[in-house]
Amino acid sequence: MNQPHPFDAAIQLQAQAGGLWRGHTHEAYSNMVGPFGGVTAATALAAVLAHPARLGDPVALTVNFAGPLAPGAFDVEATAVRTNRSTQHWLVQMRQGADVVATATAVLAARRQTWSAVEARCPEAPPADSLPRTPPLGAVRWASAYDMRFINGALQIGTPPRSDQDSVSLLWLRDEPPRALDFCSLAALCDAFFPRLYVKRPQWVPIGTVSFTVYFHADAALLAAVGSQHVLGHARALQFRNGYFDQSAEMWGPGGELLAVTHQVVYYKE
Amino acid sequence: MNQPHPFDAAIQLQAQAGGLWRGHTHEAYSNMVGPFGGVTAATALAAVLAHPARLGDPVALTVNFAGPLAPGAFDVEATAVRTNRSTQHWLVQMRQGADVVATATAVLAARRQTWSAVEARCPEAPPADSLPRTPPLGAVRWASAYDMRFINGALQIGTPPRSDQDSVSLLWLRDEPPRALDFCSLAALCDAFFPRLYVKRPQWVPIGTVSFTVYFHADAALLAAVGSQHVLGHARALQFRNGYFDQSAEMWGPGGELLAVTHQVVYYKE
Repeated sequence: MNQPHPFDAAIQLQAQAGGLWRGHTHEAYSNMVGPFGGVTAATALAAVLAHPARLGDPVALTVNFAGPLAPGAFDVEATAVRTNRSTQHWLVQMRQGADVVATATAVLAARRQTWSAVEARCPEAPPADSLPRTPPLGAVRWASAYDMRFINGALQIGTPPRSDQDSVSLLWLRDEPPRALDFCSLAALCDAFFPRLYVKRPQWVPIGTVSFTVYFHADAALLAAVGSQHVLGHARALQFRNGYFDQSAEMWGPGGELLAVTHQVVYYKE
Repeated sequence: MNQPHPFDAAIQLQAQAGGLWRGHTHEAYSNMVGPFGGVTAATALAAVLAHPARLGDPVALTVNFAGPLAPGAFDVEATAVRTNRSTQHWLVQMRQGADVVATATAVLAARRQTWSAVEARCPEAPPADSLPRTPPLGAVRWASAYDMRFINGALQIGTPPRSDQDSVSLLWLRDEPPRALDFCSLAALCDAFFPRLYVKRPQWVPIGTVSFTVYFHADAALLAAVGSQHVLGHARALQFRNGYFDQSAEMWGPGGELLAVTHQVVYYKE
């Protein structure tokens, strides 16, 4: 019997009494402290998408990381607080014992075809296959769960700081081993950019995302068309100020479709 | 005795039993359907900031608009779900009767001075005083509560569509009558950009923000320094696709400080 993909194992939830779900952290996605936030976000979304009351597909997901998740089990409570004709609003709380470790909100919608227009331009990039995979980072286990191929803005930790260094990265990325893209894995990929502070200023300091948002432009058919190919991520920060920086990215399909846009605000120690 | 500023009247909350707050919609901020979402968001934030358990100042605010708010009273429940040493996580629900009309999450933090860097560049703009105020829009009452002075990207509803029209606007804006900037009024200003669809494609169709986020870079001292001067807003959309578009903006102080960045995803009918 085939083993599930590590990502599916990591976001797996078991239904409990009282509408709760039970999940477990997965070592393939461990970070310096606790699990990779992208998998925590994907797990919150998975609890919504697996709910019997679900209506439609995700349009917006926001996850606030309230405290470190200890290795082991956690509880997820997903509540549909309002269901309209074509949209549905969710609140999610993730807990370990009495401690809230994350909260999330999600908006789902039954989408239909309308006038559409893309204004952002897909960055030019050589094919993923023509670029080398970035070597795994020893201390950051989750990074090995992704195949990342940088066009620019790779981590240069330990190199001398350059006053003209910006925080922009452009890279191809996908799950490793390959896995067909879906809403949950796209949410996790949106958090797989290294913190922009490390690109701008190449030294390690403690950091942690406090709030993370994904706006989904892709529907399930478009995600299925991407399948297990790489997606092109383009990330930047606008400002680092007194302990917090913002970070935004676009996620492009291999055919140049804008799949999602994502934003986060991140704590840094100094 | 002086009347309060309409914005302060609009976000005013009265403490109720059981930790609830009671608010009332205000006609100065009415929209085509229900109140201006920026004031709803500001009211959710006001409930957090007025709470006796509050720790620190806002870093992130996300408001999901679940359904139309009818004119009249509404209830606000703000809960601190986790308080850490220097951060605090909040959940907010706004209801009319049994109906949830909005949910919000907020992250507050006690900030301290660190290494800082701004990477975005403040757009060049002539002084606000050198530009005419945009005339009020009759059907959109809340727009009269703001003084807006466009450098580019003003609404051109009813003009022939242009295939090369982008969704970018650059404008000075402030409360009208003038009011000293604070976290709540900055949150509302972040939603005072007209929906990008109307700039890109100059025709009215039903629209509604479903999720709205503000990342605050400014602290209280910086907001106080701005006072009642205009702030410079720079907004754009990246994609309009099958009923939803994203919208992002930066808010700059008159001295070129990046005060906040803001994002939203908006439903449109066709």
